[in-house]
Amino acid sequence: MLNKLKIVNDPVHGFIKIPYEILFDVIEHPYFQRLRRISQTGLLSLVYPGSTHTRFQHALGATHMMFTALETLKMKGAEVSPEEEQAALLAILLHDIGHGPYSHALESVLMNDCHHERLSLLLMEKLNEEFCGALDLAIQMFQGKYPRRFFNQLISSQVDVDRLDYLKRDSFYTGVAEGNVNTQRMISMMNVHNEELVIDAKGIYSIEGFFAARMFMYWQVYFHKTSSAAEHILVKALKRAKQLVARGERLTATENLGYFLHKSKFDKMTLEDLQRFTELDDSDIMFGLKSWQGHSDFILSYLCKAITQRHFPKNIISERPFGEELVDKIIQKTNMFYKIQNADWLVDEIERTFLPYDAEKQTVFLKNKSGEVFPLEKSESQILTQHLKIQNTKYILSFPREISSMINQDLKK
Amino acid sequence: MLNKLKIVNDPVHGFIKIPYEILFDVIEHPYFQRLRRISQTGLLSLVYPGSTHTRFQHALGATHMMFTALETLKMKGAEVSPEEEQAALLAILLHDIGHGPYSHALESVLMNDCHHERLSLLLMEKLNEEFCGALDLAIQMFQGKYPRRFFNQLISSQVDVDRLDYLKRDSFYTGVAEGNVNTQRMISMMNVHNEELVIDAKGIYSIEGFFAARMFMYWQVYFHKTSSAAEHILVKALKRAKQLVARGERLTATENLGYFLHKSKFDKMTLEDLQRFTELDDSDIMFGLKSWQGHSDFILSYLCKAITQRHFPKNIISERPFGEELVDKIIQKTNMFYKIQNADWLVDEIERTFLPYDAEKQTVFLKNKSGEVFPLEKSESQILTQHLKIQNTKYILSFPREISSMINQDLKK
Amino acid sequence: MLNKLKIVNDPVHGFIKIPYEILFDVIEHPYFQRLRRISQTGLLSLVYPGSTHTRFQHALGATHMMFTALETLKMKGAEVSPEEEQAALLAILLHDIGHGPYSHALESVLMNDCHHERLSLLLMEKLNEEFCGALDLAIQMFQGKYPRRFFNQLISSQVDVDRLDYLKRDSFYTGVAEGNVNTQRMISMMNVHNEELVIDAKGIYSIEGFFAARMFMYWQVYFHKTSSAAEHILVKALKRAKQLVARGERLTATENLGYFLHKSKFDKMTLEDLQRFTELDDSDIMFGLKSWQGHSDFILSYLCKAITQRHFPKNIISERPFGEELVDKIIQKTNMFYKIQNADWLVDEIERTFLPYDAEKQTVFLKNKSGEVFPLEKSESQILTQHLKIQNTKYILSFPREISSMINQDLKK
Amino acid sequence: MLNKLKIVNDPVHGFIKIPYEILFDVIEHPYFQRLRRISQTGLLSLVYPGSTHTRFQHALGATHMMFTALETLKMKGAEVSPEEEQAALLAILLHDIGHGPYSHALESVLMNDCHHERLSLLLMEKLNEEFCGALDLAIQMFQGKYPRRFFNQLISSQVDVDRLDYLKRDSFYTGVAEGNVNTQRMISMMNVHNEELVIDAKGIYSIEGFFAARMFMYWQVYFHKTSSAAEHILVKALKRAKQLVARGERLTATENLGYFLHKSKFDKMTLEDLQRFTELDDSDIMFGLKSWQGHSDFILSYLCKAITQRHFPKNIISERPFGEELVDKIIQKTNMFYKIQNADWLVDEIERTFLPYDAEKQTVFLKNKSGEVFPLEKSESQILTQHLKIQNTKYILSFPREISSMINQDLKK
Repeated sequence: MLNKLKIVNDPVHGFIKIPYEILFDVIEHPYFQRLRRISQTGLLSLVYPGSTHTRFQHALGATHMMFTALETLKMKGAEVSPEEEQAALLAILLHDIGHGPYSHALESVLMNDCHHERLSLLLMEKLNEEFCGALDLAIQMFQGKYPRRFFNQLISSQVDVDRLDYLKRDSFYTGVAEGNVNTQRMISMMNVHNEELVIDAKGIYSIEGFFAARMFMYWQVYFHKTSSAAEHILVKALKRAKQLVARGERLTATENLGYFLHKSKFDKMTLEDLQRFTELDDSDIMFGLKSWQGHSDFILSYLCKAITQRHFPKNIISERPFGEELVDKIIQKTNMFYKIQNADWLVDEIERTFLPYDAEKQTVFLKNKSGEVFPLEKSESQILTQHLKIQNTKYILSFPREISSMINQDLKK
Repeated sequence: MLNKLKIVNDPVHGFIKIPYEILFDVIEHPYFQRLRRISQTGLLSLVYPGSTHTRFQHALGATHMMFTALETLKMKGAEVSPEEEQAALLAILLHDIGHGPYSHALESVLMNDCHHERLSLLLMEKLNEEFCGALDLAIQMFQGKYPRRFFNQLISSQVDVDRLDYLKRDSFYTGVAEGNVNTQRMISMMNVHNEELVIDAKGIYSIEGFFAARMFMYWQVYFHKTSSAAEHILVKALKRAKQLVARGERLTATENLGYFLHKSKFDKMTLEDLQRFTELDDSDIMFGLKSWQGHSDFILSYLCKAITQRHFPKNIISERPFGEELVDKIIQKTNMFYKIQNADWLVDEIERTFLPYDAEKQTVFLKNKSGEVFPLEKSESQILTQHLKIQNTKYILSFPREISSMINQDLKK
Repeated sequence: MLNKLKIVNDPVHGFIKIPYEILFDVIEHPYFQRLRRISQTGLLSLVYPGSTHTRFQHALGATHMMFTALETLKMKGAEVSPEEEQAALLAILLHDIGHGPYSHALESVLMNDCHHERLSLLLMEKLNEEFCGALDLAIQMFQGKYPRRFFNQLISSQVDVDRLDYLKRDSFYTGVAEGNVNTQRMISMMNVHNEELVIDAKGIYSIEGFFAARMFMYWQVYFHKTSSAAEHILVKALKRAKQLVARGERLTATENLGYFLHKSKFDKMTLEDLQRFTELDDSDIMFGLKSWQGHSDFILSYLCKAITQRHFPKNIISERPFGEELVDKIIQKTNMFYKIQNADWLVDEIERTFLPYDAEKQTVFLKNKSGEVFPLEKSESQILTQHLKIQNTKYILSFPREISSMINQDLKK
Repeated sequence: MLNKLKIVNDPVHGFIKIPYEILFDVIEHPYFQRLRRISQTGLLSLVYPGSTHTRFQHALGATHMMFTALETLKMKGAEVSPEEEQAALLAILLHDIGHGPYSHALESVLMNDCHHERLSLLLMEKLNEEFCGALDLAIQMFQGKYPRRFFNQLISSQVDVDRLDYLKRDSFYTGVAEGNVNTQRMISMMNVHNEELVIDAKGIYSIEGFFAARMFMYWQVYFHKTSSAAEHILVKALKRAKQLVARGERLTATENLGYFLHKSKFDKMTLEDLQRFTELDDSDIMFGLKSWQGHSDFILSYLCKAITQRHFPKNIISERPFGEELVDKIIQKTNMFYKIQNADWLVDEIERTFLPYDAEKQTVFLKNKSGEVFPLEKSESQILTQHLKIQNTKYILSFPREISSMINQDLKK
C-alpha cells in the first residue's frame, strides 16, 4: 500500500497511476529511459506532424490499460492476486523494450531481422537478473507459459491492451479521428471464461468498431502511401550505408551505429551486441542521415536528403500489382535521367497487406448472458464481421519525383 | 458587414457564428424557439442519459456546417454569392422546423402521417410571408428547384450537412464514440463539379468512415432494441389515447394536444392545424403521459408508466423474424396473465432495416486529381464500400417483462 | 461481486460503473427517475443552448466521482469497508433527490423556501423505509453524523465530488472551457488525515485551478446577467401565478402544480405535500408557462412569454448598486409606457455575490510529504489563493427592452 | 484561388488549411523542415512525457490561429487585403525560424546570447532573397514597422496568436488541463480600433481566463521545479563542454556542434555561422550528451547522465531566496562527498519570475458596445485582473540527490 500514489500526466488517458514500487524501478532503468528517444511511429511525423510520441508513452499507456482491464475483470469475479497483477503490469510495461530506433523499420537492417520480440525477451531476462528474479512471473506471462491464459491474451492477442493503447494513441496524435478506439468500452466488455479472455456478447459493436478503427488506421495512416515510402527509404538508406561500409568506405556515424553498420552476423547475439543495442536510439540514426546527406555516393545522399529535407518520391497506390516490366522501365529511365546504373535503389513496388480480423489464427470469443461462448463470426448481431474477415492488399509504386513527366505515358498503359 | 459578430456557444463545434441578420430574426421567431422544447432524439435519453439535446441545437449546428462547407467550396474556386450563401444557411436552419414533439415518433399519430418535411415547407412558406419573400431562394434550394444542385445536395443527400451535424452531435451526447464523425475532414474533401456536390478522391476513407460511423449509430443507438421499443411504446400510447378519445372517453390533456387527439383527418391542413401544431412541444406529450398513468384503461396506463417510470418491456433482437405464430402465443399468454383481451397492444415484433450507402438511389461521386469523376463504388482505394452497400434487417420481439418466465420455453423453440 | 458489471454511457466521464445492486434499485425508483425530467441548470439553456442536461445525469456523475475518490483513498492506505463504500455512493446518488422543477429556482416559491436539502433528507428517509433500513449509514453520512468525517466532506464541502461533477458537467454542456475542472487530478490529490479529507500539498495548483474555474463558471455562466434575469423572471411568473390564485382567479395548471399554487403553508410537510412534490417536474412548469402566455393578467402573460418566446428584458451589469431611486424612476416609466400600475413586477435590481474560497467557514487543508497538515492559505506555493479569498458582488438592472430608449438618459447619470 | 486546398492534420486544431502557395514553398524549405527536429518544449518531456511536439507543429498552428483571427476581423468590418493576409501568415509562420536546438535553452551558450528573434529576422531576410522579395511585407509586420499596428500585435503582444497556439498546444500535449485556453473564443472577441488590436468588452472573462491559464502553465509546467532544473542542467552541460574545449580537450561531437563549441565570438554573425546554425537540431545535442556520458571529466559526465538517464538533482521550491550562505555550505559538502573542487557546477539556486499581465509595458484594451476603448484593468466586470498584475517570484534550490541526507539539517534552519 502506497501512501503517496505516483501518477504520470498523459494526454491520452488523463492520469496514469503506477501502483507498484517495482514498476518505478524498472521505469527508471536506462533500458527503459531509452524508449523516451524512440518514436512510436517512426517517420510518420513527416506525414502527420503531430505524431511525435514515443515508445515510452505507449508503454506507460498500455500498462494503464492493463491495470484498468484487471480492475474490470476483478469486479466481474475473476480472481487476480497482487502477484499476478504486478506481473501482468511488468510484462506489458516491457513488451516493447526490445524496439530499436525508428521502431519496426530498422529491425531488418541493423540486426539482420532479429525480431524486436526476441530482443524484448532478452532484455527482460537481463533485467530479471538485476532485479533478482522479480520478473519471473512477468516473463512467463509474456511468453504465454503461464497457465491462466487470459494474462497472455491481454498482452498479445487480437484484442490485447497493446493494440488498445497504440490505436487510441496514434489516432490521438495523428488527428485521424477514424481510429479513435473506445478503449474504456472495450475494456468494460472484457470477461474471463475458463481462464480465457472473452468479450461480453453485448459488446459486439464495440469489437466490430475496434476492428474497423484498426483497419482505417492501417490504410489511412500506417500504410498511407507516403508513410510507406518514407519507411522504405529509411530502410534503404541504412542498407546502402551498410553496403558501402562493407565495401570499405568510411562513413561518419556514432560509435554504436558504426558497430552495427560493420557487423553482419547476429546468429548468436553477444553481450556486446545487446549492450550496444541498448545505447542506440533515434538520434544515432538522425545523425547518420544528416551526415550522409553530403556523401559522395549519389544513392546514399539522395535517400538521406529525401528524409531530412522531406524531399519524397512520387507514390502511386493501386489495388493491382504494377508489374516487373513497368518497374524495370522506370528504373532504366531513372538511370538515364541521373546518369547512374543503380536506380533500382530509387524505384520500388511496395506491397501492403492487411486482414482486420484473423478468425482462423486467433478467434475472438463472445459470451452471452446465459454463459454460452461462441466465436465472434457466429454472432447474430454482427454487422461488419463478415467483411472484416477479408484480406486486402494494395501496391505502391514509388519513384523519384523528378522523372514523373518522363513516365506519365508508361503509367497510363 | 457586422461590426459585432453574434456567436453561440456550442459544446460540439465550439462556437457558431451567425453571419446574417435575417438568421437572427428567424431564430427569434416563436416557430424556431419552439425547437428548444423538442428533443433531438426523442426518448433516447432513457437509454443514453446524456442525449438530452434539442432540435434547436441541431439546427444551429447544421447551419454552422453549411457555413464551413461553403467557405471550403469558395476556397476551391466555386462561386457562391452572398445571396446564395444566405439562402443556403436559411434553408438548413429551417430544414427541421416542421418536427413535432419527440421528433419523428409522433408524425404518424398526431397528424396521420403528415411528414415533417411537408410541414417544414409549409412553415417556411408562412415565415416567407412574414419576412416579405426573403426566404424565396432558400425555399427553392430546400425543394431542390434551384438549378445549382450542390446547394440542395448540401441540404439533403447521403453526405449532407444535416447528417454531418446530427451524427456528430448524437455521438457526442450519447457518448458513443463509434459515431464520432470527422466532420471537419469530410467538409474539407467536398468539391463542386458541374454544379454537383462531389468528394475529392483522396477523401475516400473519410466517406467510408462516415458511412461506417452512421451504420454504428443506427444499430448501436437509434435502432438499439430498447430505444426502438421505447419509441414504439410512445407511439402506441398516443394511438391508444386517440382511440379512447374517439370512443368518447375523457382524457386530460393540454388544449393543443387535445385538439390533435380529437381530430383525425388532415388531408387538407387548415390554418388552425398549423397554428396549433406550432404550439405543441415535448411538454404537452409528457404532461399527457404523466396524467394518463392513472387512467382506468389498463393499456393506456401501462404504456404511460413504461415511459415515465422507465418500466420497459423485455426486448429480444434477432437476425430472423420471430413469426406471427410466436407473437400470437405471447399475446395470448399476456392476455391470460393480465386477464385482458387486448394484449396485442403490449406485444410487438418490430422490424428495423438499414442500408449504409444507397448506391442506386443516390450515388456519391468522387473526383480525382486529374478531374475525373466516378462513383464511390468504383474507387480503387475503397476498403469498405462493397460491404456498406448491403442492407441489414433485424427484428425485435417486445413483450411485458412480467411474463418472461411464462414464455421462455416458447422462445427456445 | 457482480458477474455482469452494469455501466452507463456518460459523455462527460466516459463510462459509469454501478458497482452495487442497491444502487440500481434506487435508480429505478420513481423518485429517482423523476430527476430525468428536471434540468440541471434551469433556464440556462436559453443562454447556453447546449445546457440541457438533467439532475439524473449529475447524480450518476457525482456517484462515479465518489467511486473514483474512494478507490484513490484506498490505494493511499485509507481503510474503507464495502458497507461504507456503498453508503457513500448511496448518499451522493441521492444528495439532490429533493430538487424540484427547474432546480433551485422554485424552492422559494412552490414550497415557501423549504430548502432542497431538507427535502432530500425527507425523501431519503422515505426510501430508507422502503428499502428496510439499507440507507441508514448513507443518511448518517449525508447528515454529517458519521464519525469518519471525510465521507461527509466528500459529499459536502468546498472540494466535494458534487462540485467536481457539476462544474465539469456544466462546463462540458455549456461549452465554456474556462470551467473545465481537471477532476481526475483533483481526485488523485485527495488524501485522508485523522479521518478528515485533505489534499496532497503538491496538488496546490489543482485546487487553485479548481477554485478559479468555479469562479469563472459563476460569473460567466450561473450569474451571467441574462441567466440571472431569466431565473428571476421564472420565479416571478410563479409568484404572480400564486398571487392570482390567492385572489381567486382560475389558472390552467396540471393537478400537482395546481396543488402547490393553492397551498401557502408548508411549516409541517404533510405526506400529501411530499407525494405530490415527487410527481412534479419541469414539464408541469412549462405547461403552466405556455398556458398562461395568453392570460388576461398583463404581468403574468408578459413574464411567461419572456421565457417561452425568449423575449428577455434588457439587463445591465455593474460593480456598484444602481440605487432605489433609479429603479423607482424606471418602474414609473414602465407603468406609463404600458399603462399599468404594477411595473415593479417587471423591473428589478438583482444582486449576485460570490466568494471562491471561504477560508473561514471551511478551511481546505493541505498535507505535505513530511505529513504536516496546514491550511491552503498558508501554503508557500500558492499563486492565487489570496485573491480567491476575496468576495465579489455585482448588480444587474433588469427592465423591459421596450422602454430602453426612454431611460437611456437616466442610466447615464 | 486553389482548386485543391492543402490541409494538414493537427491534433490540436483539427485541420490546418494552407491558403497561399508561397506558404507551401516556405514550409518545404530546409530551414523550415529543420523545425521538425526541434522540440517545442525542450526537455519538458522528461517531466511531462506527452510533451514531444515540435516547433514545426507550433509554427503551423500559430499560422492557423492567424488565419482564423483575420477571418474574424474581416467579418467585423476590418479591411485586410490578400497581400496583407499573406504577409501576416508568412510572418507568423516564420516567427520562430531562428530557434536553435532545445528551443530557448541553448541560445545563451551556443551563440553567446544571440537572441532567437534576431536569428529569426536574419533567416527571414535570407529567405526573402531566395524568394525575390516576396517576404518584404511580412518582415515589416514582424518588425513592427508596418503602419497598421494590429498585424504586429497579432504576431507579438500579450494576446498574440503565438501565445494562443503554444499555450493550447503545450496544455494539450502535457495533459495539464488548467492551461487549456479557449482560443476560439479569444479570437472571436478580437477587434480592430484605429488600426490597433482590441478586445470586445464582453470577452473580459475570456482574457482573464487566458491570463490565468498562462499563469498556471508557467508555474505548473514551464517553471515546474524539475523542468527548471532540467533546463539548467542542459545549459550547464553545454557550458562545461565549451569550457573543456577551450582548455584544449577533445570532445566527440557532430561537425556543426563542434563548430559552435569552438567558437566564442558572435558579435558579427558570419555567413558560415548562420549556415551551420541552420543545420543544427536536437539530435546534435543529444548525440553530444550521449557521447559525453563517459567522459573523464566528472562534471560533464554527471550532467550528461542526469539528462540521458533521467537522474535528476533534488529540487526544493520556496517563495523566499535560500541565500548564498546555504548554497556555499551545500557546495562544500558536495565537494567533500565527491572529492572534487568544482561542485559549484552541481549546486544552484534558480530564480523564476512571472507577471501574468504586464499592464504598464503593454496594455490590453477593451472596446464596449458603444465603441469606447479603455484598458483591461479599468473594466467594471473584471474578476481577476487586479491579481494578475502582481509579479510572483520563486526560488529553486537544486543539488545532487546523493547528498540529501547530509544537508537535511542545514535546510531546516
